[in-house]
Amino acid sequence: MKRQLLLATCAMPATLAATPAAQAAAPAAPPERPNILLFLVDDMGWQDTSVPFWEQRTPYNDTFETPNMERLARMGVTFTQAYASSISSPSRCSLITGANAARHGVTNWTLQRDRQTDAESRTLVLPAWNCNGVQQVAGIPRSYVGESFVDLLRRAGYRTIHCGKAHFGAIDTPGEDPHHWGFEVNIAGHAAGGLASYLGEENYGNRTDGRPQSLFAVPGLEKYWGSTTFVTEALTQEAIAALDKAKRYGQPWFLYMSHYAIHVPIDRDARFFDKYRQRGLSEREAAYAALIEGMDKSLGDLLDWIERNGEAERTVVLFMSDNGGLAAAPAWRDGAPHTQNAPLRSGKGSAYEGGIREPMIVSWPGVTEAGRRCDSYVMIEDFYPTILEMAGIGLPRSAHPIDGVSFAPLLRGTGDPSRGRALYWNCPNLWDATGPGIGPTCTIRDGRWKMIYWYETGRKELYDIPADIGEGRDLAAREPQTVRRLSKKLGRYLRRVGAQRPSFRATGQPCPWPDETENEK
Amino acid sequence: MKRQLLLATCAMPATLAATPAAQAAAPAAPPERPNILLFLVDDMGWQDTSVPFWEQRTPYNDTFETPNMERLARMGVTFTQAYASSISSPSRCSLITGANAARHGVTNWTLQRDRQTDAESRTLVLPAWNCNGVQQVAGIPRSYVGESFVDLLRRAGYRTIHCGKAHFGAIDTPGEDPHHWGFEVNIAGHAAGGLASYLGEENYGNRTDGRPQSLFAVPGLEKYWGSTTFVTEALTQEAIAALDKAKRYGQPWFLYMSHYAIHVPIDRDARFFDKYRQRGLSEREAAYAALIEGMDKSLGDLLDWIERNGEAERTVVLFMSDNGGLAAAPAWRDGAPHTQNAPLRSGKGSAYEGGIREPMIVSWPGVTEAGRRCDSYVMIEDFYPTILEMAGIGLPRSAHPIDGVSFAPLLRGTGDPSRGRALYWNCPNLWDATGPGIGPTCTIRDGRWKMIYWYETGRKELYDIPADIGEGRDLAAREPQTVRRLSKKLGRYLRRVGAQRPSFRATGQPCPWPDETENEK
Repeated sequence: MKRQLLLATCAMPATLAATPAAQAAAPAAPPERPNILLFLVDDMGWQDTSVPFWEQRTPYNDTFETPNMERLARMGVTFTQAYASSISSPSRCSLITGANAARHGVTNWTLQRDRQTDAESRTLVLPAWNCNGVQQVAGIPRSYVGESFVDLLRRAGYRTIHCGKAHFGAIDTPGEDPHHWGFEVNIAGHAAGGLASYLGEENYGNRTDGRPQSLFAVPGLEKYWGSTTFVTEALTQEAIAALDKAKRYGQPWFLYMSHYAIHVPIDRDARFFDKYRQRGLSEREAAYAALIEGMDKSLGDLLDWIERNGEAERTVVLFMSDNGGLAAAPAWRDGAPHTQNAPLRSGKGSAYEGGIREPMIVSWPGVTEAGRRCDSYVMIEDFYPTILEMAGIGLPRSAHPIDGVSFAPLLRGTGDPSRGRALYWNCPNLWDATGPGIGPTCTIRDGRWKMIYWYETGRKELYDIPADIGEGRDLAAREPQTVRRLSKKLGRYLRRVGAQRPSFRATGQPCPWPDETENEK
Repeated sequence: MKRQLLLATCAMPATLAATPAAQAAAPAAPPERPNILLFLVDDMGWQDTSVPFWEQRTPYNDTFETPNMERLARMGVTFTQAYASSISSPSRCSLITGANAARHGVTNWTLQRDRQTDAESRTLVLPAWNCNGVQQVAGIPRSYVGESFVDLLRRAGYRTIHCGKAHFGAIDTPGEDPHHWGFEVNIAGHAAGGLASYLGEENYGNRTDGRPQSLFAVPGLEKYWGSTTFVTEALTQEAIAALDKAKRYGQPWFLYMSHYAIHVPIDRDARFFDKYRQRGLSEREAAYAALIEGMDKSLGDLLDWIERNGEAERTVVLFMSDNGGLAAAPAWRDGAPHTQNAPLRSGKGSAYEGGIREPMIVSWPGVTEAGRRCDSYVMIEDFYPTILEMAGIGLPRSAHPIDGVSFAPLLRGTGDPSRGRALYWNCPNLWDATGPGIGPTCTIRDGRWKMIYWYETGRKELYDIPADIGEGRDLAAREPQTVRRLSKKLGRYLRRVGAQRPSFRATGQPCPWPDETENEK
């Protein structure tokens, strides 16, 4: 049943764009100001789904059940090369401001004001990155200031709804509050990038006297405390109530459905756990699979609401994850560490594809061709200009630059903005876990090539991604000219956007930029 | 003790402005982006205070105790001729949009979507006024669209806090939600213009299962349910928590402290009730006095917070009420009806001074002269441009006109914007209660003159307000030229701003504008 998906697709939009007949066949323009559902999953890996995002189905696609992602894939375009940062804060700060992480400088995860969260390094001094996150207003130290696309939607007439994980600014900075970003409704969002518990029985991490047990206690869902309602379901019910309200208002709406799932702890979603156990999955893997299916049910419930309310023809749905699947924590997943995103290498926190390549699907009624696949690469900051374009709103003449590029042409089949465009990552940090590709690096993807540069050692790795999706064959030694070209491009970019880099503890000297290493001189 | 207040004051700002020496003596400009506390009381009459807003103390000034209003009056400027509309919705819609009620068309109180709240008339058909209130976005029927000054403050870097009664838009319209107006925090505000109960013991009108008992149940104060906390105190505590947060953010803040007090029901505030009973007041009057003093304590607690936190020098405080004191409901006040705002005539809902003249005090550190009195007239919509000027923000080039005029020159002593300016009211409605000056009227105040025009009868009343504050001597017959001049001015204004008027049920013809009556032709 699932295998029939996406078979008749795979037309490159650039090819479409070159063919007038195909253009003429494109559906009519959508009505103005469509509703927009941005469905963002936390820590979801590229293979944590029954929808294949690769040219082959994998065992993971046959293990996990995400029928509503399949349904969405049938409605719209599946992106096989959608990228984000390798951890949450950089991705989410890029999403809300449209700025690349190298520019906004929120390059590790944020939580408490003025506190870096990096692991210790004996050899490197890590830069003073923007550990307070992003804000819309100036005056908060160690922050990047950017105007939110949500605020622009709101001022253009949208009812703006935040549901779930926010994670834009540190505690005690304005950016911690979704209302600061132009959301009129905030359901359960705050500074924390994770959750203490998924379980209503555990009050989602709050004590019965109302005080949070930890900084990760989920706020604002008091009415579900003590019930058996899994947080994924509670958020969905609250989101639907907010949509009901928006409908009564008669406004178009923007719902940022930003699930805490499938971040650790991998609590058991009782609605789906037994099914996976009965199929022979271990307790850990069954819990993980249930977490995924619970998230997928939420997507289905929202799609059902949209259809039931006659809004299907004027509602855009965008599905995305914020970083790769967690594969560096054996306590949470079975199997050898760093293999859970196969065929991709490594996982969350890594510069390899397992850390940054995301499941992404977009349905734009009247625009997208049903069931199509798109292999052009896109990046998390591209959602900013794309969503504004979908809403018929011009880019702001704001003080902060928008690094994202609208992928609307890919949806319309009128062009391919990835042609001639390079993607950039900068991670001058030490994340909590260790593993392949995890550490202070910067990275460029340019056409088929991807180069990773290690700040501390000066090592460069070069991969031909379409030919070697698992990044098993480092071609740096064989392709010195490509390495030199990409080093120059990456170095220039990082300096241009004011990116940060570590320094050597021994000398106090900064690590060289990728185009300043010995082999480049 | 109280009698010494405000004695050395009364200098007209226009006089000050004409005297260069006085200008030079004005304090230095305030620091940029001051904190701003707008303290708005509901239904508070001009005499419901121990601060005299008239040239004489009245028995009311000796009955009610408002020591913190006295404290504020010592800090800043007491306005003796501050005006609003005669009921809540018109005033609050003017406050948030800067538009006069004749223009925004929300001329009676709002609550449920698409439902007029007027009493029935056998003779008049009332106009289809904007019973859905005001909104920031287009597309909601029977609404006026205006940009909020709060949104402008927010975008200029302010933490924006709403606490208490909102009453901007009807239920199921965007304007019902304070977040829609640019407030980042909303404490207990929604569509309703009143409250079911002040009492924590009664969950402020909510049932124990969490469902509201009526549309007037106060939302969002669940944590005080079942306690003895009077709602005025609960709101104050929550406002202070929000200020603590704003301080940690390091942002300037705007707090709209919009008390539900002293709207009916006149529940007993146990903290102050006995004191007034022991002084011999009736139960009703003691409850009313306690309600006032509870509100005043809230003001004091906020002033204390400001001082304790070292913010006094950079915090503007504005005190205002939204309409006259309720005097048409014998169930709530002792004494003859319509006398409780004496020396002013009538009360809430009336075109007479008792319905529209408000207690107002403004302290702007570094700008206002301590303990001064200002007799120039100002209007509720003037707060919009004034607050923006205080914050150093230019008026927006928005699509909607700002009828308010900044009273900052009165505070600075650099001019008198009331010179040559007329004030306008339009009330083509039938409010719930009856009494002197209550009914379909429009009104102009121009210099010393005030003319009230009755839509149904064509009757015109003319008063010399400074000489006859109680509006006891109608000079219309004696001053036909003044009546003609004011009729023309009022009629032109109303037509220019698109004001509405009733029609005669018998003929279907609209009531004449004030300059279209027999005696004007």
